[in-house]
Amino acid sequence: MRAEILTIGDELLRGEIVDSNKSFLAERLLDYDVECRFQTSVRDDPPDMTDAFRRAVSRSDIVLVSGGLGPTRDDLTVEVLAETFGRELVLDDASLEVIRDFFRRVGREMAENNAKQAWFPRGAEVLPNPVGTAPGCGLALDAKDTGAGNALVFCMPGVPRELYRMMDEQVLPRIAKHRTGAGSGLFVRAAVLRTFGVGESSLDADLKDVAREEGVELGFRTSFPDNALRPLARAATAAEAEAKVSDMVSQLRGRLGPILYSESDETMEVVLGRLLAEKGLTLACGESCTGGLLAEKLTRVPGSSAYFLGGVVAYSNAAKMSLLDVPEATLAAHGAVSNEVALAMAEGARARFGADYAVSTTGISGPDGGSDEKPVGLVSIGIAWQGGAHVDSFVFPLDRERHRQLVAQVGLDWVRRSLLGHELTFSRRGGGGSNPSSGAS
Amino acid sequence: MRAEILTIGDELLRGEIVDSNKSFLAERLLDYDVECRFQTSVRDDPPDMTDAFRRAVSRSDIVLVSGGLGPTRDDLTVEVLAETFGRELVLDDASLEVIRDFFRRVGREMAENNAKQAWFPRGAEVLPNPVGTAPGCGLALDAKDTGAGNALVFCMPGVPRELYRMMDEQVLPRIAKHRTGAGSGLFVRAAVLRTFGVGESSLDADLKDVAREEGVELGFRTSFPDNALRPLARAATAAEAEAKVSDMVSQLRGRLGPILYSESDETMEVVLGRLLAEKGLTLACGESCTGGLLAEKLTRVPGSSAYFLGGVVAYSNAAKMSLLDVPEATLAAHGAVSNEVALAMAEGARARFGADYAVSTTGISGPDGGSDEKPVGLVSIGIAWQGGAHVDSFVFPLDRERHRQLVAQVGLDWVRRSLLGHELTFSRRGGGGSNPSSGAS
Repeated sequence: MRAEILTIGDELLRGEIVDSNKSFLAERLLDYDVECRFQTSVRDDPPDMTDAFRRAVSRSDIVLVSGGLGPTRDDLTVEVLAETFGRELVLDDASLEVIRDFFRRVGREMAENNAKQAWFPRGAEVLPNPVGTAPGCGLALDAKDTGAGNALVFCMPGVPRELYRMMDEQVLPRIAKHRTGAGSGLFVRAAVLRTFGVGESSLDADLKDVAREEGVELGFRTSFPDNALRPLARAATAAEAEAKVSDMVSQLRGRLGPILYSESDETMEVVLGRLLAEKGLTLACGESCTGGLLAEKLTRVPGSSAYFLGGVVAYSNAAKMSLLDVPEATLAAHGAVSNEVALAMAEGARARFGADYAVSTTGISGPDGGSDEKPVGLVSIGIAWQGGAHVDSFVFPLDRERHRQLVAQVGLDWVRRSLLGHELTFSRRGGGGSNPSSGAS
Repeated sequence: MRAEILTIGDELLRGEIVDSNKSFLAERLLDYDVECRFQTSVRDDPPDMTDAFRRAVSRSDIVLVSGGLGPTRDDLTVEVLAETFGRELVLDDASLEVIRDFFRRVGREMAENNAKQAWFPRGAEVLPNPVGTAPGCGLALDAKDTGAGNALVFCMPGVPRELYRMMDEQVLPRIAKHRTGAGSGLFVRAAVLRTFGVGESSLDADLKDVAREEGVELGFRTSFPDNALRPLARAATAAEAEAKVSDMVSQLRGRLGPILYSESDETMEVVLGRLLAEKGLTLACGESCTGGLLAEKLTRVPGSSAYFLGGVVAYSNAAKMSLLDVPEATLAAHGAVSNEVALAMAEGARARFGADYAVSTTGISGPDGGSDEKPVGLVSIGIAWQGGAHVDSFVFPLDRERHRQLVAQVGLDWVRRSLLGHELTFSRRGGGGSNPSSGAS
């Protein structure tokens, strides 16, 4: 089955946003063994959109369209789709009610322009959108419409969150059903493993001999600061495909050791949170250069209040002293970015919050603030627990945003390793810490 | 001048990487008043590539091609370009020498397959690549080649770093020269305004009468929790286009009032940071439900240590009492999520850090934790300053991530408004806070 992706929106053509929807959709299609041959973006311009619709359905069986379902004057997808294929627009009362209800629940009236989001081409199937006001739709076209074979067009929202859900819950099942109807095909199964601590090029080199047989492949996906691995298998039955993936995962588990932290694409904070909850332990943080990012990552997880007591963002030396009890003498003797201060911050946070574990970060995330002695990129990270502690310093020559992300992840990873009895380390191999691009170019 | 972008590579169509090159190129083109009408991605497949080349040159004056210049078997751009337009490939000795030298400098021999990177279509201009092994090229085509008007095709590397440099140093100057030579064309100017506090659908409705004349348009871009506006104008001269945009911005400034917080696409934390720095004032925070996000946003800005002293993430009631000095009686009487506790947290943070301003957040970001009395989505936000304070409570029925983002932004916005002497408010109209999808779908 041939598929293609069409994303609509002036903001895309102006480069105002990076189009991540295309890569999400393409990846998802591949899970279902549907290959995406073309990806196109056009503006909110009816003639360009019509031309793009016509070309797409003339050469692909599945056309995924994203964007242009909103209530503003720029949102034209459904209207143009209907006009391109000569379908009148009809009001879907159920959708109108859902949209009205959406606003009611927050104590407001539906705006007039939201009503247009309940109109669809005659014959289209409405796809519910539980996290936004714009339902999507699916339209089946035949040779008369396409000038070629049959085609299925799915229109989905451009907002990533809404798109992901609609793709997974509404569109993919319909594509799968369409495929089965279409006859034989291979079953595809995949897993996503998350690793942290070794860079992509080293990982790639180390795992060169894995997934060399027929019907399996090992993909790499950079997800800074992690590296994700995607073992994928194709087979004649689902059970066979699952077994092949399982084998690969076992093999990788043995090879990777502690740098493998999740076998189901869960983030570090989720994995760590579960470990802390299972063991009934609590965590606090004392942050400087990460500026709140450590705490923010931890609290992304619902229920984190069960194990995360809180943190201090001690962005000035005064705050380090007054809120984390770092001795003035230690700051004077070693400077804010030092193992000694990181240790004091971790122990101070642990004491202040009465937590079992505490993590600290103090560094120079850049672009300014460096000196000959203490260059931009320098950071000291600490972890303290009942009866012990560990600190270490690194130079991560990354931009400010990536520096903070990497440092925060090292901190969380150390708590995870500590809980699992692994070595508290951070590798510098092949992009682990010292390679700024940490992988793919 | 009409332009389009063509990116080549299987990895794009598989969704393995997100295509950020397209948005970079599109943005750069717009800086030079060249509008990008189409963006397409195709696989490393000669027929698909040929088809894409032909379509592009038939409808655009400038075609920017990225990807497929490497040494591997999948890199076919130059070969296919030459074949598509009937040009033989010729060896550029100078390029071959540059490539050989590249390897020499790192103590290695040039690999055989790197030699192909020195072959170009006859008549093409070679574009040097100082940071990679693949030179790019520019090929001028005429009506005989395109079936339409003249066209300029530029082939550049897919590696972002190499692309950016070649675009800026080689391609854009040639496009600029070409424009001047080509005679008239419209000049495009645009601005990006950021607003916060009113939802997209209300904004769109309120501004329905703006940008109705010829040659101007007003675009809307959702950038949750903000709404960005893009007034754009086209005119025969740069000065005219600038004046038209200026007029629209003035008109919008008058209409929008304080919800407009940036006229140059700067984020809230940047704008607020500059205000604090200008006034020599300091800020601290006391966070609960936002879990560190407020501090993290503020510290994204380089130099924020000049005005941001730090914060406390008081994720438990105990932490609210011990680190922010919230009285136990207040917590007992009103509960953690209340105006009273928000006030105490803000005042506590201000005192603890010795800051001029402090912001506090305490709420139920969900998905769990609600009750009949205090539903999921409830939040109390506080701001305290010398001699005054303001608190208010809201129910934002958003998912956890968006709830935290919106709450943090309200907090920062209140400080901004306070510094500028504006009302401390948060509108509930048309998606401002209560519309989960806050606009575009």
